[in-house]
Amino acid sequence: MAAATILEQVGRRVRLGLVGGGIDSVIGATHLLALRADGLADVVAGALSIDPQVGAASARALLLDPARGYPTWQAMLAAERDRADGIDAVVVITPPQSHAEIASAFLDAGIHVLCEKPMTSTAEEADRLVATVASRAALFAVTHCYTGYPMVRQARAMIRSGAIGAVRLVEGQFASGEPGVLREPADPAQRHWRFRRSSMGPASVLGEVGTHAHNIVEYVTGQRVVEVSAHLSTIAEGREVYDNAYLTVEFDGGAVGRLWSSFVAAGNEHGLEFKVFGTDGSLHWRQEEPEHLWLLRPGEAATRITRGLDSNDADSLSATRIRPGHPEGYLMAFAAIYRDFLTGVLRAVAGQDEQPEMRHLPSVHDGLSTMRLIDAALASHERGGLPVKVTSGPSIGGTDV
Amino acid sequence: MAAATILEQVGRRVRLGLVGGGIDSVIGATHLLALRADGLADVVAGALSIDPQVGAASARALLLDPARGYPTWQAMLAAERDRADGIDAVVVITPPQSHAEIASAFLDAGIHVLCEKPMTSTAEEADRLVATVASRAALFAVTHCYTGYPMVRQARAMIRSGAIGAVRLVEGQFASGEPGVLREPADPAQRHWRFRRSSMGPASVLGEVGTHAHNIVEYVTGQRVVEVSAHLSTIAEGREVYDNAYLTVEFDGGAVGRLWSSFVAAGNEHGLEFKVFGTDGSLHWRQEEPEHLWLLRPGEAATRITRGLDSNDADSLSATRIRPGHPEGYLMAFAAIYRDFLTGVLRAVAGQDEQPEMRHLPSVHDGLSTMRLIDAALASHERGGLPVKVTSGPSIGGTDV
Amino acid sequence: MAAATILEQVGRRVRLGLVGGGIDSVIGATHLLALRADGLADVVAGALSIDPQVGAASARALLLDPARGYPTWQAMLAAERDRADGIDAVVVITPPQSHAEIASAFLDAGIHVLCEKPMTSTAEEADRLVATVASRAALFAVTHCYTGYPMVRQARAMIRSGAIGAVRLVEGQFASGEPGVLREPADPAQRHWRFRRSSMGPASVLGEVGTHAHNIVEYVTGQRVVEVSAHLSTIAEGREVYDNAYLTVEFDGGAVGRLWSSFVAAGNEHGLEFKVFGTDGSLHWRQEEPEHLWLLRPGEAATRITRGLDSNDADSLSATRIRPGHPEGYLMAFAAIYRDFLTGVLRAVAGQDEQPEMRHLPSVHDGLSTMRLIDAALASHERGGLPVKVTSGPSIGGTDV
Amino acid sequence: MAAATILEQVGRRVRLGLVGGGIDSVIGATHLLALRADGLADVVAGALSIDPQVGAASARALLLDPARGYPTWQAMLAAERDRADGIDAVVVITPPQSHAEIASAFLDAGIHVLCEKPMTSTAEEADRLVATVASRAALFAVTHCYTGYPMVRQARAMIRSGAIGAVRLVEGQFASGEPGVLREPADPAQRHWRFRRSSMGPASVLGEVGTHAHNIVEYVTGQRVVEVSAHLSTIAEGREVYDNAYLTVEFDGGAVGRLWSSFVAAGNEHGLEFKVFGTDGSLHWRQEEPEHLWLLRPGEAATRITRGLDSNDADSLSATRIRPGHPEGYLMAFAAIYRDFLTGVLRAVAGQDEQPEMRHLPSVHDGLSTMRLIDAALASHERGGLPVKVTSGPSIGGTDV
Repeated sequence: MAAATILEQVGRRVRLGLVGGGIDSVIGATHLLALRADGLADVVAGALSIDPQVGAASARALLLDPARGYPTWQAMLAAERDRADGIDAVVVITPPQSHAEIASAFLDAGIHVLCEKPMTSTAEEADRLVATVASRAALFAVTHCYTGYPMVRQARAMIRSGAIGAVRLVEGQFASGEPGVLREPADPAQRHWRFRRSSMGPASVLGEVGTHAHNIVEYVTGQRVVEVSAHLSTIAEGREVYDNAYLTVEFDGGAVGRLWSSFVAAGNEHGLEFKVFGTDGSLHWRQEEPEHLWLLRPGEAATRITRGLDSNDADSLSATRIRPGHPEGYLMAFAAIYRDFLTGVLRAVAGQDEQPEMRHLPSVHDGLSTMRLIDAALASHERGGLPVKVTSGPSIGGTDV
Repeated sequence: MAAATILEQVGRRVRLGLVGGGIDSVIGATHLLALRADGLADVVAGALSIDPQVGAASARALLLDPARGYPTWQAMLAAERDRADGIDAVVVITPPQSHAEIASAFLDAGIHVLCEKPMTSTAEEADRLVATVASRAALFAVTHCYTGYPMVRQARAMIRSGAIGAVRLVEGQFASGEPGVLREPADPAQRHWRFRRSSMGPASVLGEVGTHAHNIVEYVTGQRVVEVSAHLSTIAEGREVYDNAYLTVEFDGGAVGRLWSSFVAAGNEHGLEFKVFGTDGSLHWRQEEPEHLWLLRPGEAATRITRGLDSNDADSLSATRIRPGHPEGYLMAFAAIYRDFLTGVLRAVAGQDEQPEMRHLPSVHDGLSTMRLIDAALASHERGGLPVKVTSGPSIGGTDV
Repeated sequence: MAAATILEQVGRRVRLGLVGGGIDSVIGATHLLALRADGLADVVAGALSIDPQVGAASARALLLDPARGYPTWQAMLAAERDRADGIDAVVVITPPQSHAEIASAFLDAGIHVLCEKPMTSTAEEADRLVATVASRAALFAVTHCYTGYPMVRQARAMIRSGAIGAVRLVEGQFASGEPGVLREPADPAQRHWRFRRSSMGPASVLGEVGTHAHNIVEYVTGQRVVEVSAHLSTIAEGREVYDNAYLTVEFDGGAVGRLWSSFVAAGNEHGLEFKVFGTDGSLHWRQEEPEHLWLLRPGEAATRITRGLDSNDADSLSATRIRPGHPEGYLMAFAAIYRDFLTGVLRAVAGQDEQPEMRHLPSVHDGLSTMRLIDAALASHERGGLPVKVTSGPSIGGTDV
Repeated sequence: MAAATILEQVGRRVRLGLVGGGIDSVIGATHLLALRADGLADVVAGALSIDPQVGAASARALLLDPARGYPTWQAMLAAERDRADGIDAVVVITPPQSHAEIASAFLDAGIHVLCEKPMTSTAEEADRLVATVASRAALFAVTHCYTGYPMVRQARAMIRSGAIGAVRLVEGQFASGEPGVLREPADPAQRHWRFRRSSMGPASVLGEVGTHAHNIVEYVTGQRVVEVSAHLSTIAEGREVYDNAYLTVEFDGGAVGRLWSSFVAAGNEHGLEFKVFGTDGSLHWRQEEPEHLWLLRPGEAATRITRGLDSNDADSLSATRIRPGHPEGYLMAFAAIYRDFLTGVLRAVAGQDEQPEMRHLPSVHDGLSTMRLIDAALASHERGGLPVKVTSGPSIGGTDV
């Protein structure tokens, strides 16, 4: 008979609180689907919206104990901290300019934090958050959700093991172009927060989609971007922030590459993909076809690796649930992020010192890296595209993994 | 503010029991992932395995109240029927020869039933189950899970609305060939129940995979198979049942077609697909690429319809959770089956007379149809492939929809 | 320096005559594109149409010597036979009911023949043609043009070498559905010859497209169909021949399979494909994506083999012209048929006894095999689909290869 | 009866001479396959190699009149100019540094010129060639062969007609990585001319593959690149020229975009593709799948347009030979270039003033544009990637079309 799982050892599910993610939040619905998948957590508390009516309706929709549907995250923190059955962990699903403050407050209270991306709205906030995480016992991770895909983890493992030789060229892009981001509404009051300068400055496109592209190539290559040349544009009529960014980059391992982030790639349904070229071959992956990772070797037949094969790397298989041939899709990738995080939380609750699953997850250093790239990109753009160094945090091979 | 959902009206989740589906069950894990997605049910009871040790471990893994982890389905039925907080519904995840008896017993007790496929092991059992369902108030559906895919429902809606004209040719196939089904173990004692004659006779391949292919083409075309010519083979060495079936069929709406079911299509990862050709065009769908439905019209550019587009049919959109471009995959399709069923159960619990979501689900008549086809196919095969009529139940356009 | 090619040895191109293939012939234009590719032949004579005006215009379009644009094939045969610079070879591009007579007449005169498919209009004609070919020195081949695709030849070589183990299941289909074949014109006088009973009986769909599907699976598997169960239909309104044929077949090597031929698969642009499943894996190929052959092995990553790789079989590479990555397409496949045939003719002109390139080409025995299958399929259909034996000619492993 | 074709009016084929393209030339073989396709030309003369032995063997392989297999292009020009049956046109297939001189000499003699790309080895040469072409009556075009693809021409026509609104973002790339270009031979003497500085300076990768990417996006968008920021690298060990180039560009019509050229995208079989995004949708095309052009509109089903549909633009259909569903491939695209050019030559021979087919072909101005971009890219790279203006010639909408 199998050994007791960590869930059985703890004997209860993780008690989870949400900040943001109410019924009017697209990403909130995604979080709920993802966090339920494995039955490792119950949502028991929430400050689900800054709009009190939406917050209350959202709490009802989740059948929350009315006492635990809070009007503000501060109220939730104050109350839950003092409950014997208070939340173990919180998920931060608010706009980025509030992430640092909220995350720090919960970390200070010893509550584990899973934080939406971009991690913060400025590099300074990110720096401070790094310090906070370093000095607190609570766990922290960023939901760069695409790293939950088994074939992204397979790519990471294969590159690490030398399957394509030394990495030389790196293409990353998240070029979206669906109706929801392509155009500005005629009435500026209807504008989404992600398209306002007040949210995270003019580089909205880098924060919102660019961080995913940046994070995923750093994740799979194990290399940090250390230099960037940027060309930013505002394409949509009436938009007050940049909505298209071309970055040419250099990595600390010697590779060169490009990162393209866009809201105006009209007709693209999603647009996240990477291609990593080494001295001996390349790996190609697209989020819209996530079950497969392509390995191309010069002069040889192409290999299409499927999620879930016995021969896949253990790190990839650990993010896999069902047999090959049954597509798992985006929500199971997101659920893999949750499974790793919640397993880490359960281990912490059980008093275990090690939470090995956390190493699969984007860390606070990864989040810092994305914020520093944005700063450097803006600086480069202002200098006509001249290359600017990125002051990078710990290497991926160091602290993070 | 949106009206209260049926979940909010009832004020609690569906109380669900499982028969089968323990930790050694592949399909059990799938059911758990699917039923959790929407937070509409809690698994509160289970008779999870005929092996008592596996059953107990499975109950622990789910953090079940130990008193509600039962050794047998009969024990579960007896105990839960009498509890004030007894289960509302049961999921039957056992081998097919036990489905009819278990389902009938729970239906008799007024407990709603979601039943794995094939619905029964013989057409006679299926006939009796039809009668039981007709005479009981409890809800019943069969988990032909692939009908939960939004693009399968889109195909059904488009055919119904005449998008391809009159249906003329129908291709359905479920030709699998992964290692788990391709070969027999050297030791017959290791043989899976699905490859034993004692499970459901010699036509295992028709029951296990053929019913999915048959069901999906009846589902999308709205036509019943009324005649079949069969060519059955045993390909794998040492196998005691047929593992490859070629059926040529005629439909009550005048179409002709083919159904191919196989365990020995070596290298296929899954293998379920359909193509429906009408007088004005055709629709093509493959389970391994489920986000897209192709519409081909003679002499025109091809149209690739994506899950989740605003222009998709309401029946398709109702099975959709997230925006196009983020693949939903198999588990969300299975979760759509659960969402429809559990919503129906909640409506029944709330005393509502209508459960409109149930019309999306394969019914007891659909299950009967699959069992009668198997009988007719065996009869045809014994007669050298001469066509045999299928005594069909109510048409899809009648009782079922 | 490379040895002199056979063209250089002969010192001139093959002198080619055409029967049929005038400017109103779709397939005639294809032949011209294909035969020119390698510069191995000049079209110097033609009886290009039964319509004298079309014939004359066609001769002008080719800049033929007016004296060698003949009104009938008989006139061409009589004149060319007697010229010192008369044609070496003839291409027969007429409707099938005239193939046997024309081909035999030219063979009798020692003129090599490349004959369109279906080889004849009846099995009796095919039998007699086999005898003629056997007793004459001139070369003969049938333009089952799809066997000129490098990746079809690659599949043949791989199956022969055991790459997928013993062949067990075979899928072949040519299910077309473009506007040109999908419907009958309102005016029966406008009906194409291929849809008239007078051309080759009621089984038009088997002769026109079914022979390609049949030939290609025999070609790649090296097995002959020896038994067939047929289900034939007429789908298009007002059509006087069958336009959809489902065949379930058995092969002399023990495999079972299906052949689907159709004119009414509405929306299919072409529709030729095969899948061959063995004990160890399978090979998949589609004419619409001809550069790639897929090798699927159970439980392993998929392999997509590209035309032109150094590791491909010599028989495949011999049909290849340019590097991988530059799609060659249908016309180069057709040109490979011509290159093999014309090289054979040049060898014969040079007095060489061996023409090894001819073994790549569908032979008179392959043509006979297709005609016998049609007869057996019609017999099976008349008997309600009961299996009927196919009296097969020499095995592919015998005379042909 | 159809009117006489221009070939029939002239009454003979174009007499063609080749400079370069002997039996050791990969691209030479491609030219021969392409130029033969339509039967519009005969190769009657050639200076096929700078190696006399290769030249002689190449002449024999083509069955040339020995007197017309010349040792040098100068000898060919001198002799052919004076023959009554001298060549009408010449194809220049030599390394780029000789193009300008050879082309000018033949143009001066009134002989039409089809010139390989890159058009010249410097912008200065290109400038002078523009002047020569302007002052001579003979026709001139550059074989940017990929513009011969029907679906490239379809994209051009659709963009011109506003199918995607105003062009905003342009992606062009030719990132190859096959064994032949990926690595340098250990022995520098074995190095291909394209990897020597002496051929066309350090920007080999821009001349060899970059010009195709640049040309194709200018061709389909109708916009000229007017500014470039460049990041050039040498990746392959021991290489003396740049082999990877990232360009960020701006177009005269206001679009921004990227051009990626590479020899070291390991595993790519070819690598040419473009994506053009407008305000209302986008068009996507890949050379490795050339039969299809994808039209994506935000929030709508995707449209996959196939070569040869009746609804395609006349400019696209004019480059098409056979029905949809039969892939035409690269050689027919190249043959379309030849058909347009040779038809132009026949019209000139017939004394017609207009050669409308020439407008499909890359002109001397397009060739100049590619050379100026290279200069600007080098200048930008030397300035750390700062943007540099491209002094552009006549706009595409002006002289060229």
